[in-house]
Amino acid sequence: MSKVGVIMGSTSDLPIMQEAIDILKGFDIEVEVDIVSAHRTPDKLFDYGKNAHLRGIKVIIAGAGGAAHLPGMIASLSPLPVVGVPVKSRNSIDGWDSVLSILQMPGGVPVATVALDGAKNAGILAAQIIGASDKCVLDKILFYKEGLKQKVIEGAKDLNK
Amino acid sequence: MSKVGVIMGSTSDLPIMQEAIDILKGFDIEVEVDIVSAHRTPDKLFDYGKNAHLRGIKVIIAGAGGAAHLPGMIASLSPLPVVGVPVKSRNSIDGWDSVLSILQMPGGVPVATVALDGAKNAGILAAQIIGASDKCVLDKILFYKEGLKQKVIEGAKDLNK
Amino acid sequence: MSKVGVIMGSTSDLPIMQEAIDILKGFDIEVEVDIVSAHRTPDKLFDYGKNAHLRGIKVIIAGAGGAAHLPGMIASLSPLPVVGVPVKSRNSIDGWDSVLSILQMPGGVPVATVALDGAKNAGILAAQIIGASDKCVLDKILFYKEGLKQKVIEGAKDLNK
Amino acid sequence: MSKVGVIMGSTSDLPIMQEAIDILKGFDIEVEVDIVSAHRTPDKLFDYGKNAHLRGIKVIIAGAGGAAHLPGMIASLSPLPVVGVPVKSRNSIDGWDSVLSILQMPGGVPVATVALDGAKNAGILAAQIIGASDKCVLDKILFYKEGLKQKVIEGAKDLNK
Amino acid sequence: MSKVGVIMGSTSDLPIMQEAIDILKGFDIEVEVDIVSAHRTPDKLFDYGKNAHLRGIKVIIAGAGGAAHLPGMIASLSPLPVVGVPVKSRNSIDGWDSVLSILQMPGGVPVATVALDGAKNAGILAAQIIGASDKCVLDKILFYKEGLKQKVIEGAKDLNK
Amino acid sequence: MSKVGVIMGSTSDLPIMQEAIDILKGFDIEVEVDIVSAHRTPDKLFDYGKNAHLRGIKVIIAGAGGAAHLPGMIASLSPLPVVGVPVKSRNSIDGWDSVLSILQMPGGVPVATVALDGAKNAGILAAQIIGASDKCVLDKILFYKEGLKQKVIEGAKDLNK
Amino acid sequence: MSKVGVIMGSTSDLPIMQEAIDILKGFDIEVEVDIVSAHRTPDKLFDYGKNAHLRGIKVIIAGAGGAAHLPGMIASLSPLPVVGVPVKSRNSIDGWDSVLSILQMPGGVPVATVALDGAKNAGILAAQIIGASDKCVLDKILFYKEGLKQKVIEGAKDLNK
Amino acid sequence: MSKVGVIMGSTSDLPIMQEAIDILKGFDIEVEVDIVSAHRTPDKLFDYGKNAHLRGIKVIIAGAGGAAHLPGMIASLSPLPVVGVPVKSRNSIDGWDSVLSILQMPGGVPVATVALDGAKNAGILAAQIIGASDKCVLDKILFYKEGLKQKVIEGAKDLNK
Repeated sequence: MSKVGVIMGSTSDLPIMQEAIDILKGFDIEVEVDIVSAHRTPDKLFDYGKNAHLRGIKVIIAGAGGAAHLPGMIASLSPLPVVGVPVKSRNSIDGWDSVLSILQMPGGVPVATVALDGAKNAGILAAQIIGASDKCVLDKILFYKEGLKQKVIEGAKDLNK
Repeated sequence: MSKVGVIMGSTSDLPIMQEAIDILKGFDIEVEVDIVSAHRTPDKLFDYGKNAHLRGIKVIIAGAGGAAHLPGMIASLSPLPVVGVPVKSRNSIDGWDSVLSILQMPGGVPVATVALDGAKNAGILAAQIIGASDKCVLDKILFYKEGLKQKVIEGAKDLNK
Repeated sequence: MSKVGVIMGSTSDLPIMQEAIDILKGFDIEVEVDIVSAHRTPDKLFDYGKNAHLRGIKVIIAGAGGAAHLPGMIASLSPLPVVGVPVKSRNSIDGWDSVLSILQMPGGVPVATVALDGAKNAGILAAQIIGASDKCVLDKILFYKEGLKQKVIEGAKDLNK
Repeated sequence: MSKVGVIMGSTSDLPIMQEAIDILKGFDIEVEVDIVSAHRTPDKLFDYGKNAHLRGIKVIIAGAGGAAHLPGMIASLSPLPVVGVPVKSRNSIDGWDSVLSILQMPGGVPVATVALDGAKNAGILAAQIIGASDKCVLDKILFYKEGLKQKVIEGAKDLNK
Repeated sequence: MSKVGVIMGSTSDLPIMQEAIDILKGFDIEVEVDIVSAHRTPDKLFDYGKNAHLRGIKVIIAGAGGAAHLPGMIASLSPLPVVGVPVKSRNSIDGWDSVLSILQMPGGVPVATVALDGAKNAGILAAQIIGASDKCVLDKILFYKEGLKQKVIEGAKDLNK
Repeated sequence: MSKVGVIMGSTSDLPIMQEAIDILKGFDIEVEVDIVSAHRTPDKLFDYGKNAHLRGIKVIIAGAGGAAHLPGMIASLSPLPVVGVPVKSRNSIDGWDSVLSILQMPGGVPVATVALDGAKNAGILAAQIIGASDKCVLDKILFYKEGLKQKVIEGAKDLNK
Repeated sequence: MSKVGVIMGSTSDLPIMQEAIDILKGFDIEVEVDIVSAHRTPDKLFDYGKNAHLRGIKVIIAGAGGAAHLPGMIASLSPLPVVGVPVKSRNSIDGWDSVLSILQMPGGVPVATVALDGAKNAGILAAQIIGASDKCVLDKILFYKEGLKQKVIEGAKDLNK
Repeated sequence: MSKVGVIMGSTSDLPIMQEAIDILKGFDIEVEVDIVSAHRTPDKLFDYGKNAHLRGIKVIIAGAGGAAHLPGMIASLSPLPVVGVPVKSRNSIDGWDSVLSILQMPGGVPVATVALDGAKNAGILAAQIIGASDKCVLDKILFYKEGLKQKVIEGAKDLNK
């Protein structure tokens, strides 16, 4: 069964990253959560990056803030698609550091970057990546999009009363 | 066979987007190229977005500049993973408009954003997405990464002479 | 009678957009309010954009935040003047994403952009657009501007006491 | 007959602003061009702003760069809709000064801002404002949009050869 | 006797601008305060700018926020040195709009810009301008600077305890 | 007779700063030019700042780029009004470093900042400061402003031909 | 024995700078704290910068906000390595002014800049500088890094429960 | 003897980084140059970071551009002081990505960041770090600073002719 690895640089990123975990579970996709700090646990970073694809993980979601090196370093080490979540951490300069140090990867090593604090979208994107080859997950994405639409239409109804 | 759809808002984006096409062909992945403008051909946008997954496309790469709405609108319409390439177009404000209007998607509708003018990485990311369920493509990614490494090591040799 | 369509991407934009509705009502201009999400209700977006001018709407005001595609997509679909209101939404990067993804439209498809959270000015601008061909509304604009002046002069009086 | 006033702060802005003039002439709309500098000819600014609506002008397009005060000051003086074009002038800080000093008008005095150096879109927007009450101009806008579409479709054809 | 004119675009700027008034009074320099809005009272702006130097004012301090046109327009109309105070108003984009629309004046019409919300420094600068030709005020500036120094030295003493 | 001191951090700033020198000479104001580097000649900086007002200088114009400390340090040392010119030097980040490190002075020590590379305006501002107490210079400023106006009016004439 | 000098522009910077002091004391490195304002106590700045290396100080940590000139001026005066801490002071423009006026030093006079409000890292960096020639301090750095790692691993354990 | 390790992410960074090498050689400090890419040679990165302090290197200078992870990852792996040089690479967004992804390191793992493309200053800083415990190098720094001063004084002489 397909599995998504969700990692983050610090437990302080968990409140944001939980949104990725929750949405994946909502799609019945198996999730494995871990704390891997590029700057404080480089050995764990190496082990994780080199072995994730060997133990059933299909997509890695990595969240980090400030000079955020976790998503890019994992992308350096793993052949899997890596989804990067820029987290607006405490001393961040309005989130620009998190965004740019994840997004602006050099040619050869992409990170699929989502919006600042956009962990929910990281989860959906991981599901879409699995859905690219799994009809059942693709159908769930279509169903989820239908739900988004209905909620807007409900909101508009209330508005016109 | 898996197919990647590469679309862009204007033929003027082609010199940048060609890098995505080339790298995908290098991975022996079938590519279908088209011009779809969110602002000038909205009907074509709708058709493309709604039907891409029904005719064998597994990943969509969409490049656009300025107030770049193509990647986000395709992501709105399609259940497939959409990779967005911010293009630094002629009147762009240093590329910030392209980056932010692709990256900062609202919750529910992700775009996998790569670096400014990062079409090459968009191609690699699309290959990685296919590789998540295709062992043969995954091996090609591993081989490609090995090539990147060798090139650096060669460069370092020359340096020490 | 002239009518202004006020739309927004989400009910969460309503507190900001209400200022446009209120000022238009103050000018005795008919207003029609709706929720239209570019990313969650693309079909409604298409219907709205293609038909607004056929049912008496003369100006469209569209507010959205983050990667704000609603104003530009409506401008793509409709021949009417579209006034865009960049809303500083929850995860916005200080409003820059909202501003740039509405303002920096490509040649051919303009959006009349107002200040960040400037819904009040969007309402006045819509009234001025109607006033361009309606002497009665133009006079109301002149009267409104006189009121702005008097309020400043009153404030200055209090200051000198 | 409806007339659009096109003004700019300096003759050095003319190469940019010419695009507004050309597109309006293409729509058979009468254009009146003038140089009005907020900082060097304040008396002319006042005369222009106070009287434009009295001599048949329906929309004013104002272009300026750097600390660009012309569009906002005209909007202060005139009841007409004012379209502002931020020009990227020689000493501009990447255009940010031009954009922000036109866009961020206070409540009560809107300027319909278009993209940096977006004079062409300013012309189209002025035509749309006239088209809001002039069926003949509205039809030309619809025809113009059809032309934009055909050009993209032609471009896509060439691409597939 | 020398007099400094302190003006601002709105009474809401008064809490900031009061610091300029207070420091000038501390230097025994006569101050005249007024509300002059470039966008809401353009006639008052013109009268003020054209006549200030004829009624004994030597320096003008002008504070405004957002697309802040007051300092630049006063500098356009008056031959006096104009000190501009960028105010971080309610809907300002982090103060950048206020700063750039005051600072980036075109060649020929300078505004002496101080820091964001730097009204206190505007007052000191006005005193220095008067002090350039008034030995008595110059001595007060020297005395004031000595006071700044003593306060730091006192603070450092407490630190070492 | 009143004298203006024009200093800069490096001879490479001279092409920009020459505009200040030229305009002051045009106003028949005596100018003294020197190179004073805050970072490379701190002793000269101290001598200059502490003594300028003792040898007839009435206003100091200081230009510097990057982390530009010259204007602020001179303002720290001298009781005279200091006009700061942010120079866009070779490795500057688009001029932002020069602008912010001159403009954002702490309370107590103002620098009268002009636009990026705005040396011409620095010269005019220095003349206005002298003109605040010198009727003859004030008249020259009025005459200069009249010249600016005539040039615009001439340009507009050519336009209408 | 090696000594680190920790200085700051104002007592208001102490809550931030205390983190540098605390971490250095944790490494058993002697610290000397002082308030030195580039703008308010220039003489003290000169004495400090010229003499620090003569009285046993090996590294200087300097923190300041806004147009932060203290670190750069100390680097101008002293041959010692200077670590600069950009402090996000009250009227700072989101910290950009502090960062750029410390980081962007001209060729010849470096400041070792750390993150915004990154005083803790300034302390660690000063310890590493001393550790470059002091095996005992180097070992403490290695031990400290081991502690960082253990804390992450502990946090990950809690996560998996 | 003390040795400085100079590494960079790509041979394309060499023209910038050469300035660090040259200035260190000018101070008679031994330099070892290598190409180490965080994203393309992660194993070499690990070896380099873990062992540099074991083979006589006292300071590491690391230059990289875009999402620049090399300096921070080396700082993660090594107990030595790491000087980071943000390089303005080809697709960089005006250098902001390089600067922020090196500067904004999290608490615990500092990088001594110098100006954009500031490799020369990185070399001087490395010399100062060695000079903190090596009187001979410290004297060379003092001599170098004297040279900077003389060059400015010479330049000023030419100016007055």
